[in-house]
Amino acid sequence: MKRYKRSFASDNNSIVHPKIMEALNNVNNSHVLSYGDDPYTESARKRFKEVFGQGCEVYFVFNGTGANVTGLAAMARPHQAVICTENAHINVDECGAVERFAGCRLWPLPSKDGKLKPEQIQPVLNVLGNQHHSQPGVVSVSQCTELGTVYSIEELKNLAAYAHSNNLLVHVDGARIANAAAFLGVSLKGVTADTGIDVLSFGGTKNGLMFGEAVVFFNRQLAENYKYIRKQGTQLASKMRYIAVQFDALLSDELWLNNAKKANAMAALLAGEAEKIPGLKITQPVQSNGVFVSMPRAAAERLQQQYFFYPWNEEKGEYRWMTSFDTEEQDVMEFTAAIKAAMHGQH
Amino acid sequence: MKRYKRSFASDNNSIVHPKIMEALNNVNNSHVLSYGDDPYTESARKRFKEVFGQGCEVYFVFNGTGANVTGLAAMARPHQAVICTENAHINVDECGAVERFAGCRLWPLPSKDGKLKPEQIQPVLNVLGNQHHSQPGVVSVSQCTELGTVYSIEELKNLAAYAHSNNLLVHVDGARIANAAAFLGVSLKGVTADTGIDVLSFGGTKNGLMFGEAVVFFNRQLAENYKYIRKQGTQLASKMRYIAVQFDALLSDELWLNNAKKANAMAALLAGEAEKIPGLKITQPVQSNGVFVSMPRAAAERLQQQYFFYPWNEEKGEYRWMTSFDTEEQDVMEFTAAIKAAMHGQH
Amino acid sequence: MKRYKRSFASDNNSIVHPKIMEALNNVNNSHVLSYGDDPYTESARKRFKEVFGQGCEVYFVFNGTGANVTGLAAMARPHQAVICTENAHINVDECGAVERFAGCRLWPLPSKDGKLKPEQIQPVLNVLGNQHHSQPGVVSVSQCTELGTVYSIEELKNLAAYAHSNNLLVHVDGARIANAAAFLGVSLKGVTADTGIDVLSFGGTKNGLMFGEAVVFFNRQLAENYKYIRKQGTQLASKMRYIAVQFDALLSDELWLNNAKKANAMAALLAGEAEKIPGLKITQPVQSNGVFVSMPRAAAERLQQQYFFYPWNEEKGEYRWMTSFDTEEQDVMEFTAAIKAAMHGQH
Amino acid sequence: MKRYKRSFASDNNSIVHPKIMEALNNVNNSHVLSYGDDPYTESARKRFKEVFGQGCEVYFVFNGTGANVTGLAAMARPHQAVICTENAHINVDECGAVERFAGCRLWPLPSKDGKLKPEQIQPVLNVLGNQHHSQPGVVSVSQCTELGTVYSIEELKNLAAYAHSNNLLVHVDGARIANAAAFLGVSLKGVTADTGIDVLSFGGTKNGLMFGEAVVFFNRQLAENYKYIRKQGTQLASKMRYIAVQFDALLSDELWLNNAKKANAMAALLAGEAEKIPGLKITQPVQSNGVFVSMPRAAAERLQQQYFFYPWNEEKGEYRWMTSFDTEEQDVMEFTAAIKAAMHGQH
Repeated sequence: MKRYKRSFASDNNSIVHPKIMEALNNVNNSHVLSYGDDPYTESARKRFKEVFGQGCEVYFVFNGTGANVTGLAAMARPHQAVICTENAHINVDECGAVERFAGCRLWPLPSKDGKLKPEQIQPVLNVLGNQHHSQPGVVSVSQCTELGTVYSIEELKNLAAYAHSNNLLVHVDGARIANAAAFLGVSLKGVTADTGIDVLSFGGTKNGLMFGEAVVFFNRQLAENYKYIRKQGTQLASKMRYIAVQFDALLSDELWLNNAKKANAMAALLAGEAEKIPGLKITQPVQSNGVFVSMPRAAAERLQQQYFFYPWNEEKGEYRWMTSFDTEEQDVMEFTAAIKAAMHGQH
Repeated sequence: MKRYKRSFASDNNSIVHPKIMEALNNVNNSHVLSYGDDPYTESARKRFKEVFGQGCEVYFVFNGTGANVTGLAAMARPHQAVICTENAHINVDECGAVERFAGCRLWPLPSKDGKLKPEQIQPVLNVLGNQHHSQPGVVSVSQCTELGTVYSIEELKNLAAYAHSNNLLVHVDGARIANAAAFLGVSLKGVTADTGIDVLSFGGTKNGLMFGEAVVFFNRQLAENYKYIRKQGTQLASKMRYIAVQFDALLSDELWLNNAKKANAMAALLAGEAEKIPGLKITQPVQSNGVFVSMPRAAAERLQQQYFFYPWNEEKGEYRWMTSFDTEEQDVMEFTAAIKAAMHGQH
Repeated sequence: MKRYKRSFASDNNSIVHPKIMEALNNVNNSHVLSYGDDPYTESARKRFKEVFGQGCEVYFVFNGTGANVTGLAAMARPHQAVICTENAHINVDECGAVERFAGCRLWPLPSKDGKLKPEQIQPVLNVLGNQHHSQPGVVSVSQCTELGTVYSIEELKNLAAYAHSNNLLVHVDGARIANAAAFLGVSLKGVTADTGIDVLSFGGTKNGLMFGEAVVFFNRQLAENYKYIRKQGTQLASKMRYIAVQFDALLSDELWLNNAKKANAMAALLAGEAEKIPGLKITQPVQSNGVFVSMPRAAAERLQQQYFFYPWNEEKGEYRWMTSFDTEEQDVMEFTAAIKAAMHGQH
Repeated sequence: MKRYKRSFASDNNSIVHPKIMEALNNVNNSHVLSYGDDPYTESARKRFKEVFGQGCEVYFVFNGTGANVTGLAAMARPHQAVICTENAHINVDECGAVERFAGCRLWPLPSKDGKLKPEQIQPVLNVLGNQHHSQPGVVSVSQCTELGTVYSIEELKNLAAYAHSNNLLVHVDGARIANAAAFLGVSLKGVTADTGIDVLSFGGTKNGLMFGEAVVFFNRQLAENYKYIRKQGTQLASKMRYIAVQFDALLSDELWLNNAKKANAMAALLAGEAEKIPGLKITQPVQSNGVFVSMPRAAAERLQQQYFFYPWNEEKGEYRWMTSFDTEEQDVMEFTAAIKAAMHGQH
């Protein structure tokens, strides 16, 4: 990879990993059936079963919002509610996509660290059986959370067990689940199927793909009508092979893991450098590839003239920096230098 | 391009055109902003304005269903109806996507050649102002039609003028509009903006792209809220550059036209050969890259053992063959030979 | 009942039957629980079980569109299609309510007499299993049909058997099912439960109620989540007793039947008189309380200056006249005289 | 009115006010056109204009959820958000009806007294123009609030002014707005049109009607397509006169006001008695016809064996008692005695 300037705005500012691009180039040489009836899709499905367990069913879609919306629509009827945190991507960053397509109410609960706890869900269950209220049907959590934190395996298992004992299904928005697995040091199966969750949005785009996410059903009954829901949800790709081979490559030779480890390591490096800077405060544990900081607004604005990045909480002067698989140490060091300068009033 | 066997099932069984793939490889070398705020997307938008007229607004989405659904949702309120033909893709091939997302009624009208005529619309207008009926708001036509036929420029102009004079908007499903322009010998602007239509789904995937369609607003007021509708409709790509550069390449050096001409020419060749075969009947004028035939069911089934293709009307024994930009004369000749053999009871 | 001029526009132009009004007055004397947890609702539910069979479940709603929309939403998932006739009320007279709320596609089939035949459904089933198409899930028929015709018991049984053998559910829009039962000379159970249908919209408003329809589930599994669907569909009445007692009265002492018989008899009388008038043609068999006629547009317009009524098919000069339980012979005779005068150019 | 036992569970446990019932009986004597084209509906509309101002447009619907859902659907596009309090009826008590029909996201904000403050809205506006987020379009407040509190005229004016200065529309859920007007000592126009709000759900059922609510548009542009939205939303009554005459009577001779005053007075009486009881705490200012109390769970359960009423917050042991227009002093005294007994361990 040649040298270019990396941003810290989002992991989707990154390129397509060269091995993924190579896979795309390699299959561009024949007619195959469309809509998933091709050998490449078949092969990628097999790869998923090897990685996530033979009991799963996988379907490919275009993007994360599409995976979340269609996956949740397969799990919940419109009169049901999807319990999530207030800062969940499905609640605040998808322009009402779940509500409009699935017809469900989202039932947001407060969370300081991005995680949902079983004891928060319990009071919600008081409405069960009461015709006036959306009926809790699904618990949706993000792993990693939107705040960069990671549920432990035990936390996930407890949450899933609690949910199932109350007839709730468990959905995981795994846009960055590779980063969570890398942090926890467990396999993808270990962080998903083995915890008892029902449906996963498995992220590809933020971990080196050009486009493409996968909806993985560990609870296969829920997949019964999914192919129609995917189509009705505008998420059926015609030239499906070009999603499938990306995932096949991502799941081969631990590319998913190496990419995630690299991004995580760069976030750790950045956090380590940042916390040395006076006046800047790390606001969340750095457990994946995101670094949340509070810093003076003026300094942030100076820094943003060189590096675009998002405010997380404008009221509080909190900002988010993301690393990706293609972030290099030199990028972090240059960015750190820029932060220091901005904190000193320079830009 | 090396030699490989081509099918005649669908133009989306084809590969990605090498120039498109080259464009994708060429931009894979830097961080850029996501969600369309990158220079490649800016450049592609400019290209669209050069080709379709400076007055248009263009937005990129993942696929044709996504383009149709979100485009129509920008044009019609849920209490309105979208008038189309019975065989329109939005009516029969999108699993109810428009109804579910846009909330509209589709108002299908019969059509033997795939075209909608102004005189068919007139009786529908009797319901205007009557609160019991979905209010006609949009006329949606496909160019080329689902039957491979092509509206003349005059037909389109008349339809658009009729619609506008009755306060109806005009939507064009242009999954194969390049083939229509090639057939008519007019520019893309000539077959769209100049006819007075309001919104176009501009197809890319069937004409050589890996994925990606564009929603082109000639009536710019309708684009006012489109970016939110696209997001809520799950059609906002994060790594947008990888759609944008494909379109930039497609609209450069008349690649779109050469691809369409090639596909059309191969369909004409196939139709010419096919109509010489006794017992086989061409059922629609061959004006683009589709050939519709009726043939004995047994012969079709024999042929399908070598070449997968779709029945169009199972009751009538009607079938559809499609060519694409990468179909070669030799492919047509081999297929023709296979047809003949199948008609003679061989396979 | 005192004498007043009756129209022939619609059976919902009629008053509330005095016995129904009496029932409303009688329960207006105490606090009771709302939303259906009151003794009057309990009593009305029991009455339904006596009349329709102990195996049914009944829920009260406000109106016919509400009954159809929420009933169908309990029967079909959004990726499914509801097969109906082109002239079905749900297709043309409900402003897209089913599409918007249930998210389903309606799959209309042509019908000259308002009835759906099993052989029409068969070709639709070709799409089963094909992800591109809304999956046929429900057959919805109207009894009486929108054209005033009545399915025979055998026709209904055959249709239901055909549907069930193909995993389709059967919904009946019974806005005027009392008139059908009266025509057929069978009980309400005989025309519904005994024919094998799954869900019925049982009409009250057109047969003497002030407001109120009932959704009757013969297939009780389908009722599992209905109370939530009714609420989400805005059809849960707070002061439920005031719907319940109307139905209790309607189903007592065969009031439903006497009302329907009276309306049917008046339509028969009107049709008998009308067919004697030269230049006027009865266009549908008169089997319930509707009379469809074709007559010169000028004559119709003259008549409409005295009596408001609806054109059925403006193109064809076809009109609809409806009788109701409170239509009297004298009303018919006065109307007949007015028709004759209008046909002679007078008004 | 004869003597009967009144509950304190909800104001919709009450009867229909005798004057309303009388009005219903009085119009049950002729054929009139349906769906609102009758003289009674015309008359009721005129009455609304007299009471709320000549600039308003009014439409009748069946119930409060229907009024809220269809009113909001006329105000907001699906990509927009409706800002409300966490305890708003539309957020927690309508089973997701707004989300499903209007397609909007609800954006709930915390509120201890049931009121929304302009300063809470300000941070929400940061998302304006950002395609990832539902766009704030409407502020919906309840007057009275769900906690029985009442916005002052100044509070409402400030909220409306703030909203309008930020291009937000203002919706009022006025299921109990008569009680608010009675408390404030202002006219219905004073508490609505004069504060600058755009659309009102005007409650009838809780203030003496059998059924029926009105959607009142002060911003008449928003009513442009409302008749279609009402129909598509299943809220168009066929025998419309029977809603219209109820409202006509309610707005005549200040019946609405007298009913509301009576209910408010009874709540004040109950609160006065209750606050004398040791161990029982009034938790909200009593400004309308609701009394919120905290009391020992055991005592509440004893009381509930005689009087059904709802827990408001099961976690906190908070309960809600409602009075209505037909609550009498003797009812309050008997209830107070029962409370005391329950607090002493008796039942």
